[in-house]
Amino acid sequence: MTYCVGLLLNDGLVMIADTRTNAGVDNIAVFRKLHIFSKPGERVIALASAGNLSHAQTVLSLLNEGLENPETGKMETLMQAESMFQAAQLVGRAVRHVFKTDGEALEKQNVHFDVSFLLGGQIDKGSLRLFMVYAAGNFIEASLETPFLQIGEHKYGKPILDRAVFYQMDLYDALKIGLISVDSTLRSNLAVGLPLDIAVIRRGTNTAELSYRVEQGDAYFNDLRTRWSEALRATHQSIPPPPYKTAK
Amino acid sequence: MTYCVGLLLNDGLVMIADTRTNAGVDNIAVFRKLHIFSKPGERVIALASAGNLSHAQTVLSLLNEGLENPETGKMETLMQAESMFQAAQLVGRAVRHVFKTDGEALEKQNVHFDVSFLLGGQIDKGSLRLFMVYAAGNFIEASLETPFLQIGEHKYGKPILDRAVFYQMDLYDALKIGLISVDSTLRSNLAVGLPLDIAVIRRGTNTAELSYRVEQGDAYFNDLRTRWSEALRATHQSIPPPPYKTAK
Repeated sequence: MTYCVGLLLNDGLVMIADTRTNAGVDNIAVFRKLHIFSKPGERVIALASAGNLSHAQTVLSLLNEGLENPETGKMETLMQAESMFQAAQLVGRAVRHVFKTDGEALEKQNVHFDVSFLLGGQIDKGSLRLFMVYAAGNFIEASLETPFLQIGEHKYGKPILDRAVFYQMDLYDALKIGLISVDSTLRSNLAVGLPLDIAVIRRGTNTAELSYRVEQGDAYFNDLRTRWSEALRATHQSIPPPPYKTAK
Repeated sequence: MTYCVGLLLNDGLVMIADTRTNAGVDNIAVFRKLHIFSKPGERVIALASAGNLSHAQTVLSLLNEGLENPETGKMETLMQAESMFQAAQLVGRAVRHVFKTDGEALEKQNVHFDVSFLLGGQIDKGSLRLFMVYAAGNFIEASLETPFLQIGEHKYGKPILDRAVFYQMDLYDALKIGLISVDSTLRSNLAVGLPLDIAVIRRGTNTAELSYRVEQGDAYFNDLRTRWSEALRATHQSIPPPPYKTAK
């Protein structure tokens, strides 16, 4: 399992991904799922993956080594994409390429083709954008009304995002909310685990302002988890008890 | 969809169920999913259902009208069960009976057999117990370490339960936490909706101390939702921003 969240805000983009992979609960490992493609000042693209690790890694290799564009016959890499829309199309084509190559063999082994991506960033003078690419290679884009997208184990961490995230919020407040969302997921699903990878991209800079790994025992993250738990306890204690009576 | 939660505590049992059913988002209705079987002082049994409404209702009818026990040949109803364990076995047999009757026809229509129950209560001098009955008719029981069980759309509302519920907590504090858990679910899944049905059973009384329907516009529930949202906002604002810097 995996949990990745991307938040697209007025000031910029926040991406967070956990690093746990598992093939059964008895086979757990740490793999990086958040990758940054960057030429500072020209482009910065953050790609986070969920689903089958083998498919995600193959897509990543294709995006690095290049994939032929069927319309132009040219080999294309993520570092050459001319816009974020074209970058999302390229990720979609890479996903379809893997399905075409591996799909039949997977089906024979009863393995479901399951991979998805968050793709966020900015290229040249283009807009800062955030996409979610599905296993069929199609994609959706975050908007002003729904400024966050999630992949993997998304439900446990969604209530806090639904309540607290808005487009005009401060970038590091959004990072904080994202970390709280990850914390809720970590507590409820063992298949999501530390360390976490974080990227913060300020709009218009075409550079990752922050690229950081939150390791086990990270003092700030531990403090955030403790404060959040204690505040939730204090909050529900401050709400008066239900006055309900059985109707006679 | 549905969300039901049961909390088994030192002082008693809390059960909450929503009432929304849907066959597609264009076909939404209100149906009671929490049913109380009670002879005050002798027995009180609360049964909440999730999954296919037709299967849940058929199980309910069987529990009322009676189902033959294959070992004794006797017809058994929930009101006659001699212990909560026997009540859980009876619910399991009723589920299997429906699958036996309907399973083949459902399969031909590609309808998945999907129904589950929370069953809690106390009979005579027996213990207050809480079970979750699966679609295969097998069941698990809440324990001191995990004093709550959920059916239906369980993920959105689980983080608050994981953090805040403990066996020794006050019964009406637990009801409050349960309502917060339902609120998180209501916000994130349109297929879960008001009104809510609530039951509170105090241990050793064999009676429902509270049986209540929270309607749309319920003043206490609205206040709880507002307070919870505001407190979450205040809480994350009180946490200092992340001090993270990109490693050089």
